[in-house]
Amino acid sequence: MSRGRCIRLGPGEEFDLIRRFEGQGGALPPDVLVASGDDAAVLQGGWVVSTDISVEDVHFKRDWLSDQEVGYRATAAALSDLAAMAATPVAVLVSMAARRTGVDLEAVQAGVREAASAVGACVIGGDLSRSPGPLVLDVVVLGCTSWPVLRDGAEPGDEVWVTGALGASTAAVRAWDDGRSPAEALRTAYARPTPRVDEARWLVDREWVDALIDLSDGLAGDVGHLAAASGVRIDLELAEVPVAEAARAELGDEGALDAALHGGEDFELCFVTDPDKVDPAAFERRFGVPLTRVGTVSKGEGVWLVDGDGGRRRVERGGFDHWGAEPT
Amino acid sequence: MSRGRCIRLGPGEEFDLIRRFEGQGGALPPDVLVASGDDAAVLQGGWVVSTDISVEDVHFKRDWLSDQEVGYRATAAALSDLAAMAATPVAVLVSMAARRTGVDLEAVQAGVREAASAVGACVIGGDLSRSPGPLVLDVVVLGCTSWPVLRDGAEPGDEVWVTGALGASTAAVRAWDDGRSPAEALRTAYARPTPRVDEARWLVDREWVDALIDLSDGLAGDVGHLAAASGVRIDLELAEVPVAEAARAELGDEGALDAALHGGEDFELCFVTDPDKVDPAAFERRFGVPLTRVGTVSKGEGVWLVDGDGGRRRVERGGFDHWGAEPT
Repeated sequence: MSRGRCIRLGPGEEFDLIRRFEGQGGALPPDVLVASGDDAAVLQGGWVVSTDISVEDVHFKRDWLSDQEVGYRATAAALSDLAAMAATPVAVLVSMAARRTGVDLEAVQAGVREAASAVGACVIGGDLSRSPGPLVLDVVVLGCTSWPVLRDGAEPGDEVWVTGALGASTAAVRAWDDGRSPAEALRTAYARPTPRVDEARWLVDREWVDALIDLSDGLAGDVGHLAAASGVRIDLELAEVPVAEAARAELGDEGALDAALHGGEDFELCFVTDPDKVDPAAFERRFGVPLTRVGTVSKGEGVWLVDGDGGRRRVERGGFDHWGAEPT
Repeated sequence: MSRGRCIRLGPGEEFDLIRRFEGQGGALPPDVLVASGDDAAVLQGGWVVSTDISVEDVHFKRDWLSDQEVGYRATAAALSDLAAMAATPVAVLVSMAARRTGVDLEAVQAGVREAASAVGACVIGGDLSRSPGPLVLDVVVLGCTSWPVLRDGAEPGDEVWVTGALGASTAAVRAWDDGRSPAEALRTAYARPTPRVDEARWLVDREWVDALIDLSDGLAGDVGHLAAASGVRIDLELAEVPVAEAARAELGDEGALDAALHGGEDFELCFVTDPDKVDPAAFERRFGVPLTRVGTVSKGEGVWLVDGDGGRRRVERGGFDHWGAEPT
């Protein structure tokens, strides 16, 4: 499904590129087509590169996961950044810092390899250091695309869509925090997330996608990134947000909706496209995953939540953030 | 000085590629030309990628360096891996895990940018997480080359050469460990190492280089990597090893030689080439850095140290290793 390596960037994307790079104090070299203040860049030749750090007791607790799952989860999370660009994963490098005893690094590496090979990528390198502190994995992912889909293609009148169901990963953490074992569906969502690589390419191949992001910070926060990058306002219809049933069972209706909006690490896709273009039934037949229209794009700025009565309030909270958040 | 992006790999390099990848349990995808068990890979299009982790209290102490120097040093160390492939640096991504207080992350980032721009590269992304533990930086470097120089080109009869003078970085650590401030030359060697990017390309442009490595683990250890990759024996002439004067002043003759052979992180280049090909005076005129013939290649295996009386002993110690080593 790899689509060659010639890059075609629209004028909006080029503007976005420059905007993202401003404030970093350097001119963009000709071999870098898109530089990102966060975690994804596009290089000459159509290579997409991203790096994603996972820290014990911040992103995960070792009580919660096997060492293999620690590697799997960190790698799947990083690969989700390639899905967010509709790129085809090719290669993974993993750097680890770990205490010399108590961690089965072979098992962690096996998890990294398992997550990589699940999307057709190989582990091609990395680094290892002893550390006196928590287990840290930094996973570098490299993929190819002929058409990287950026965050800035949303226009007034467009629809906002999301894959899968949200909130399960946050609900798993909540159960562990309460000293309980999460239900199996919650645990799986947290421990073995599925980067939506095939789904992203399928959607882009059908030209259904004008702007794309993966949901790592919660729907409200990530939709906010789309809105900011595109210079538009996005209204999310709360009744439409696809909340995972297992999350609802754990957190109740209100808590599960909050987890979907503001929790982290669902690793589903959110995209924006022209109205009446998407055929969700075709997507669900192909992938066995729902595709749900959750909102609309209009002139303005920010993200607004629309309740069943048509009441609207602006989202003030940001998404989940592994810098500022309290320990999980 | 960038030399386009078409890759020409010799048959020996292809073999090495496969050998390196064995044991990692996967087939090499067509877009990956060289995969490495350690820290450097070559991708379709001539991209070279490497990742290098730096951990507080393992690679550095914050008493020793300013926060800006922490960023500079970690980035220069990572860029040295591009020099070791004779690649032109293009882009840097940096992931950081840090406590929420006590570290000036802007200063660390300024150091990353400074080291990147010193070799013509830009910072194009990264990641940031809070951590309850030591400051961790993982620096991803991306460069371009039309002819990546690998470790396996050494043949019997070849000469072994090294740039610069060795042992100063280890001597700086020794002074700090003794509770003293290192001499300025030692401190600079440790805090602001120079990745030999221009030097590597200059040497390769002259076709003086058949196998190349950077000295991150000490001369004996890194020459051992060349010998193992090439399937040859290397004899190092101890009297020829270029020991930094300031290291000699700190450690004495014997201690400084030991630091040059077994200490870490000099980030000089070591290369192998046909006899009587190299003009060290031309190199020194161009770069103001000495170029010294330190050994010879022959049939066999391992690294042997030759003293002034012609006595030979095989190196049993490995190089410096941030996994197994005691804390600095």
